[in-house]
Amino acid sequence: MQRFINDPDLVVEDMLKGYQKAHQDLITVSKNNDRVIKLKNAPIKGKVGIVTGGGSGHEPCFLGYVGHNMVDAVAVGEVFSSPTAQSFYDAFTEADAGQGVACLFGNYAGDNMNVKMAIQMAEDDGITVKYVTATDDVASSPKETRHKRHGIAGGVFMWKVGGARAALGGSLDEVITSAQKAVDNTRSICVGLSACTIPAVGHPNFKIAENTMEFGIGHHGEAGIRVEAIKTADEIATEMTQAILDDFSFSDSNHELAVMLSGLGTTPIMELYILYDKVEKILKEKGLCIYKVFIGNYVTSLDMNGTCLTIMQLDDELKTLLDHPAKSVGIEISAK
Amino acid sequence: MQRFINDPDLVVEDMLKGYQKAHQDLITVSKNNDRVIKLKNAPIKGKVGIVTGGGSGHEPCFLGYVGHNMVDAVAVGEVFSSPTAQSFYDAFTEADAGQGVACLFGNYAGDNMNVKMAIQMAEDDGITVKYVTATDDVASSPKETRHKRHGIAGGVFMWKVGGARAALGGSLDEVITSAQKAVDNTRSICVGLSACTIPAVGHPNFKIAENTMEFGIGHHGEAGIRVEAIKTADEIATEMTQAILDDFSFSDSNHELAVMLSGLGTTPIMELYILYDKVEKILKEKGLCIYKVFIGNYVTSLDMNGTCLTIMQLDDELKTLLDHPAKSVGIEISAK
Repeated sequence: MQRFINDPDLVVEDMLKGYQKAHQDLITVSKNNDRVIKLKNAPIKGKVGIVTGGGSGHEPCFLGYVGHNMVDAVAVGEVFSSPTAQSFYDAFTEADAGQGVACLFGNYAGDNMNVKMAIQMAEDDGITVKYVTATDDVASSPKETRHKRHGIAGGVFMWKVGGARAALGGSLDEVITSAQKAVDNTRSICVGLSACTIPAVGHPNFKIAENTMEFGIGHHGEAGIRVEAIKTADEIATEMTQAILDDFSFSDSNHELAVMLSGLGTTPIMELYILYDKVEKILKEKGLCIYKVFIGNYVTSLDMNGTCLTIMQLDDELKTLLDHPAKSVGIEISAK
Repeated sequence: MQRFINDPDLVVEDMLKGYQKAHQDLITVSKNNDRVIKLKNAPIKGKVGIVTGGGSGHEPCFLGYVGHNMVDAVAVGEVFSSPTAQSFYDAFTEADAGQGVACLFGNYAGDNMNVKMAIQMAEDDGITVKYVTATDDVASSPKETRHKRHGIAGGVFMWKVGGARAALGGSLDEVITSAQKAVDNTRSICVGLSACTIPAVGHPNFKIAENTMEFGIGHHGEAGIRVEAIKTADEIATEMTQAILDDFSFSDSNHELAVMLSGLGTTPIMELYILYDKVEKILKEKGLCIYKVFIGNYVTSLDMNGTCLTIMQLDDELKTLLDHPAKSVGIEISAK
């Protein structure tokens, strides 16, 4: 394994030690739980708390989205594993300032189970927690069962929107409504060109053969829609964009889009721009207008080579919330 | 080749098309030369122009450092190749507002030659251009011949410092002096765990065998100081930090440091934090104080797996210039 690690079983501990030191101006580790990272000044008086959590290995996700006007506390899991219910609960207590907590997380079985247990624990303590699950991965379940879909890079839009709504003084119900709108308006699709290796395992759990690509692969290597011969960037971008257009009725009534192309870990930034050129062309040809673009490594999968295309349809509310200043390690939006 | 590309010979063209679309709020392509990217509102009246340039494949470097209070125009080369003299010249003309241009670039033979030809061309046109070359790579030449060293990720500090000095109204000589101070106070070292593939070549130009690492490798695979068995992250971080401490007399008189750990392309972000934990420990043990930390992909080498550690010793001037707000694709510093 060609990796910069010490003990493969301790990569999360070791990462968190470095993370805490590197970003001590912004975040701190919870005194109650070393698997909870919180915004330094959380809980913020009068504000609804925003919590997320998920497995490690997706950096800068999830911990990188703790920040000003973003997420207040995050529960950190082992590599590709859900954080414990206790960690989600501790994150709730770190984020709650008495206005309740919005838990905005990606739809995976383990996270779902643990969040729900943690919500029960919080309720027993008089902390109100409501949740939204990101379900943006169009490849993970058919349209008819959209609620079963996994959350992938679209979570970033959910946190940005929910975080801004909370920062602007929204009530818990208002935060939940805005975050849910972000989820309902967001679709993603991934393409993988190579597998990834969990350090503690030491070899890939799946394979993508040379000269093939996996269309619709999940962020942990979940089987995609099809394995096929590798195509040109233009062809791949076309298929990805089309998969999203087929799934979501983008209104023609002056709606604008936010578009994200996230690398999955080992994809050169150069190639994300090559893909984007074609994505933009297709969207423009369809008469759609791109309002904001995010290109880079926003949600990764260790050393997987691949990309995730995410599109959110905007309205005035979502535009305002997306543009609201925010500062986190993973994303920074400065005042206009 | 498992890559998201169209024609391997046209990756730079294709990237630039996407880059231009993605960041049209910030940058634009020069009307005179499609290999020159400039800040949208450059040249800026009354301000010294900042220009850089270099080979492609290092994204977000170099074009990603065009931005507000950063670089005004960049000359874009083919993958791992210097931009032409004409492109540097055209970048000078795009950046010059009559106060002269500071060309801040990495010390490589091709870039040196082309910059100097371009300066000659500019002088003939009455544009004053002075330059500073980044020479931060301690592995690329002995201490005694520091001027022969290559520039690697330390260039980012040079652009940040020079860009801020120009934004604050510095004269050309003042910009050059500040940028040179940044270079003089900066040292870097890389470790490579895998080679990279230039798309048009289709296979790596060099090899790093499984279970080995190359200490001191250059950003294009230039031979390092030694090839050795791969070590733990703590050991690698120790050797990297020590190599810099051995090369530069960090003053004990209250100086603070800026530290950057940049991934070379395919290194998971998680691992950069694992390395940083140890880097911080060592610097702290030496009584040194870390003022600002940058962790992420700042200067990459296509799909190379490796990391670059860069340390700049700060004084009051460099702190002020580093903290000055800036907005570019590669780096963003918000007002305190």
